[in-house]
Amino acid sequence: MLARADELGAVSEEPDRLVRRFGTPALARAADRVAGWMEEAGLTVRRDAVGNLVGRTGGAGPALVLGSHLDTVPNAGRYDGPLGILVGLAVVERLSAGGARPAVPLEVAAFADEEGTRFGTAYLGSAAFAGSFDRAWLDLADDEGVTLGSAILEAGGDPEAATSGPAPSLAGYLEVHIEQGPVLERDGLPVGVVSAIAGQTRVRVVVRGEAGHAGTVPMAARRDALAAAAEVVLAVERAGRGTDGLVATVGALELSPNVGNVVPGEARLLLDVRHADDAVRARAAGTIRADVERIASARGVDASWTLRYDTPAVELAAGLRGRLEAAVEAAGHPVTSLVSGAGHDAVMLSRVCPAAMLFVRCAGGISHDPRESVEEADVAVAIDVVERFLRSL
Amino acid sequence: MLARADELGAVSEEPDRLVRRFGTPALARAADRVAGWMEEAGLTVRRDAVGNLVGRTGGAGPALVLGSHLDTVPNAGRYDGPLGILVGLAVVERLSAGGARPAVPLEVAAFADEEGTRFGTAYLGSAAFAGSFDRAWLDLADDEGVTLGSAILEAGGDPEAATSGPAPSLAGYLEVHIEQGPVLERDGLPVGVVSAIAGQTRVRVVVRGEAGHAGTVPMAARRDALAAAAEVVLAVERAGRGTDGLVATVGALELSPNVGNVVPGEARLLLDVRHADDAVRARAAGTIRADVERIASARGVDASWTLRYDTPAVELAAGLRGRLEAAVEAAGHPVTSLVSGAGHDAVMLSRVCPAAMLFVRCAGGISHDPRESVEEADVAVAIDVVERFLRSL
Repeated sequence: MLARADELGAVSEEPDRLVRRFGTPALARAADRVAGWMEEAGLTVRRDAVGNLVGRTGGAGPALVLGSHLDTVPNAGRYDGPLGILVGLAVVERLSAGGARPAVPLEVAAFADEEGTRFGTAYLGSAAFAGSFDRAWLDLADDEGVTLGSAILEAGGDPEAATSGPAPSLAGYLEVHIEQGPVLERDGLPVGVVSAIAGQTRVRVVVRGEAGHAGTVPMAARRDALAAAAEVVLAVERAGRGTDGLVATVGALELSPNVGNVVPGEARLLLDVRHADDAVRARAAGTIRADVERIASARGVDASWTLRYDTPAVELAAGLRGRLEAAVEAAGHPVTSLVSGAGHDAVMLSRVCPAAMLFVRCAGGISHDPRESVEEADVAVAIDVVERFLRSL
Repeated sequence: MLARADELGAVSEEPDRLVRRFGTPALARAADRVAGWMEEAGLTVRRDAVGNLVGRTGGAGPALVLGSHLDTVPNAGRYDGPLGILVGLAVVERLSAGGARPAVPLEVAAFADEEGTRFGTAYLGSAAFAGSFDRAWLDLADDEGVTLGSAILEAGGDPEAATSGPAPSLAGYLEVHIEQGPVLERDGLPVGVVSAIAGQTRVRVVVRGEAGHAGTVPMAARRDALAAAAEVVLAVERAGRGTDGLVATVGALELSPNVGNVVPGEARLLLDVRHADDAVRARAAGTIRADVERIASARGVDASWTLRYDTPAVELAAGLRGRLEAAVEAAGHPVTSLVSGAGHDAVMLSRVCPAAMLFVRCAGGISHDPRESVEEADVAVAIDVVERFLRSL
């Protein structure tokens, strides 16, 4: 599995770093490589209207899907996405080698776009797979003005079929993914069972004060947009720290002007708030919004609040979670449950079938970075757990 | 004078906004225009090795120089610089029209570069005029790789002569300039006498924490560079507010990464501290530096402190200030004295002769902006005050 991840890690749009965006020749080459392994494993391979690759075994009827995504962010690591595909494939190979016939048909799915790097829409591949592809997405354009519709055509797909696919009938979905956080490493555990995928609130806050000469405008006469923004940043952090399980972040801040000797007149911030409980998240966002208004009013600056993104939390299926926890225990490891702060294809699949996720420890919680890594022993645990999970169905 | 300022305001490198940088055809055209007015006023015109334009009248011996700069920042107003040249010229014309012969020769000087927009070095023109031109500057390059040395040559100047000029023998220097701050407007005064030009400390602070996924890294495990930087911004503001006459600013802040869903790993800040008393400024910078270290240590992030610029305060000449204050009083206006938070050509001239400055009220303290403005009545007061000042010599 690790050798295959290394091999896929070398299939990139660029020579010096890993990037595989939707509809690119690099993504097609990676999919061809995975299709070859699927065929060698005896799977029946198909590609859907947006280029999702699916390998199937075990006869007719609703399948249990083992999957994740094959696309990457720019300057990516090798495991975010491919790990779930390759662990699924490895387990199918083991079952087949052992002569086991699973209780349900199995599918291994490699989704064509989860990161949304090229067209800005997350879960593109799994949305199409799950019959949730939004027709309006076809008109989204990439940085070069190519629409998603024409990118699908160019990659050999079918935009019309993508938007009109019915919801599939599935037995369930299991996604293995690196944690992308430090919790399993901190707790010394190879894997963890995901209980829920946090809901997200993303907001653009724009603070408008007044630009002025840093040498000539007395402190008392200033309406410094950065000083107000700094108070907002600390209020956001305070909100995050004050509530268990909440993460609240200002990840981006831009100033106008942005010059050493000018008091900043405008600050634009991007705010990100996540929690597994939507009510808790809404309360935190409300607290932060009130803080922003209080800070702006006290400083005589304007502050706008624009909601850009609001997705509810997804609770993963209790039945599959229970089986997954039993499999972890049977494999001889302590059972732990985590909330996923990041979104995953499981969000889309949970709309059409019971969905579960297994996280694998990654060093330092580092992802979206070439230093992204997993331990061989932890991957072996994941394969063992997924095999036990499938045998328990 | 206002009509001439309007005329110069239309002489620009770009059609839609005012920008006149050193060594450009636009600056040469503006200098030709001023040279024409000087000649009409009976001045003897010369250009020096870097393109400073000087008009002289009144015979031999050390001159009293009335001057300011002709270059501008990008997207400039019409008065920052030209006001001092044109008021000087207007006063010489009035003296001449009245048949007055001043006690000392007079020079009106239009310096070729004060803003440093193209080569990043302030006071280029007046430094050359005052014999303080640093030879190392010749190797500075603009954004297109053109060195200052070749820009001087191309503009018809002489780089060698610029660096080897002796300090001139001058009777004194008087610069009229818009205030670029809100104090005169607040106090309802047309003009003010500058007591000193504040010293400046400029520092680059780089905060290095750890980037991480905004959804998956728990608050307690973060080393958020922006949250630390926000504390620094507020500490800088606190230092400025806590000391009379001090201004302390974070004007620029840049993050890496700068993405909504990633905890920032690095924040780079530019810090600017100014005061008329160097000891006060040094104390404030020391307090801020200690704050930066305390904040970094408490948050487990690194913070570097790089001094980029440290210029002492310049006290303007008591004798000339006294005459200027007497002239303001004689013109029927309350006398007020201000510290200049911005640097001016007077910094360079003060090294070789007694130097004085007169500030003129500008609406909202706005400068370096097309909205920069002066009132006709205030300009009339400035001309009256400078004429009285010259008659008092």
